[in-house]
Amino acid sequence: MVDDLHKYLARLDLSMRETRSLICVGLDPVISKMPITDITKFNCEIINSTAEHVCAYKPNLAFYESMGIEGMQHLEATVKHIRTHAPHAIIIGDGKRGDIPSTSEAYAHAMFNQWGFDATTVNAYGGLESLQPFLEYGDKCVYIWCRSSNPGALEFQDLTIQHGNNKSIKLFERIALSASKTKAKAVIGIVAGASYPHELHDLRSQAPDMQILSPGIGAQGGDLKAVIQNGVDKAGRGLMINASRSILYSTQSSAKYGNAANLAVKTLKDDINKFLCENGFDW
Amino acid sequence: MVDDLHKYLARLDLSMRETRSLICVGLDPVISKMPITDITKFNCEIINSTAEHVCAYKPNLAFYESMGIEGMQHLEATVKHIRTHAPHAIIIGDGKRGDIPSTSEAYAHAMFNQWGFDATTVNAYGGLESLQPFLEYGDKCVYIWCRSSNPGALEFQDLTIQHGNNKSIKLFERIALSASKTKAKAVIGIVAGASYPHELHDLRSQAPDMQILSPGIGAQGGDLKAVIQNGVDKAGRGLMINASRSILYSTQSSAKYGNAANLAVKTLKDDINKFLCENGFDW
Repeated sequence: MVDDLHKYLARLDLSMRETRSLICVGLDPVISKMPITDITKFNCEIINSTAEHVCAYKPNLAFYESMGIEGMQHLEATVKHIRTHAPHAIIIGDGKRGDIPSTSEAYAHAMFNQWGFDATTVNAYGGLESLQPFLEYGDKCVYIWCRSSNPGALEFQDLTIQHGNNKSIKLFERIALSASKTKAKAVIGIVAGASYPHELHDLRSQAPDMQILSPGIGAQGGDLKAVIQNGVDKAGRGLMINASRSILYSTQSSAKYGNAANLAVKTLKDDINKFLCENGFDW
Repeated sequence: MVDDLHKYLARLDLSMRETRSLICVGLDPVISKMPITDITKFNCEIINSTAEHVCAYKPNLAFYESMGIEGMQHLEATVKHIRTHAPHAIIIGDGKRGDIPSTSEAYAHAMFNQWGFDATTVNAYGGLESLQPFLEYGDKCVYIWCRSSNPGALEFQDLTIQHGNNKSIKLFERIALSASKTKAKAVIGIVAGASYPHELHDLRSQAPDMQILSPGIGAQGGDLKAVIQNGVDKAGRGLMINASRSILYSTQSSAKYGNAANLAVKTLKDDINKFLCENGFDW
């Protein structure tokens, strides 16, 4: 029994063990890339076809907001469908929100109470104090956007900061360090792009127990083997690997995209589990 | 004639001159603070009561999202009301969005095409490259969240960065510097909290022509006189001063909140114009 395990971590652990999977599928619908035009129908088919192989889904709010209120209705229907058809799955609302505390309070309410996400991504530029309202939710997880997966990530995130006497540290490491020291009711995790395995290694070294959400596998070209080696904790867990485009858009066939998504996610899971095994971890 | 003036700057200049006002009113509805419960009705009354004295409105998306889809419908109705009843006013969608480029593209589409905002606030943590899709909109303005108005702002924003030989600079200054050097079709501005006039001064020194959006007057206690002195450009413009709670919630009377908002915004405008005058600027 793991009575003292945080409720979110217990759910995540169960979900990963049930599916033997570290995979999170990003539900980022872009109509021009989709084989059908109905977002809800598309997402439901993707969910039904992938649920057995994934521990979490991550709708990125941008893609729903870009369709206005209709998009938000698709988001609502998608969350409902996950709850009924993939009840094991964690749902991460990817919004990278962050603002002064009175505004963060409203965002946290939106993410956790209105949309009912189990976790959300946030932006810590306003300081950890600015994120306090998110951190008050005792059964949730808050992933701080730490090292992003885009080519220009380094512009600010890699700036060198003085840290103690004669020591220096990069900004993204400084944020992770602050996150790892912050006491909170919610679990605090970080987002660290799979396209930068070296940085992932540094982050894991500095925060051995931190939950890491790592996007950038697939379309963004992250090296899966390096991500596993550098990203997992001492138990071979603590890492969620997100893939979006490579799962959602592996075919343009309206008859086959469900099967194609199933195959793509199964292949990715097998690859991940092979690398886990090579590093001495099993389910 | 100012044929070569950017379309956004021309509109902003006209709006400021028509109203003789640097004020932006933040439309951040919180039902528990409101004298009535209908968000759209409340916003419409605030807009009707303040339009003559303000150059812009700034709905903060958090407060609408916290009410789910119904909230987004209130946002849509509010934007429509501003366009018909205060057509001079700039509308700034305050969302502090920021993500990798493919996601920023969706956010930019949401902000500029779906909601139809004239400007939006963004978060530059992903580097200027991550904001490129926002910067492609030639008739819009993108305000980068630079120095926030909350007490914990300094945690990361004030970290000291090496900058050239034997020189150092704070992170928020580094971001402003990068913003001021970036070529873009959109106007690039910055958000710098009124609660930190010293930092506002540093930012204005580094970027003499930058558009600055300064929240934090009123409920957050920013010093108006210092903000004017430190924030305006050489022409006494280039600064928009945002007030939200002090305008929206100056009374709990459902019969008088419109009049109260009118009075509050008129008083603020007179104070601003007095300080502008003391610094040698006039309309």
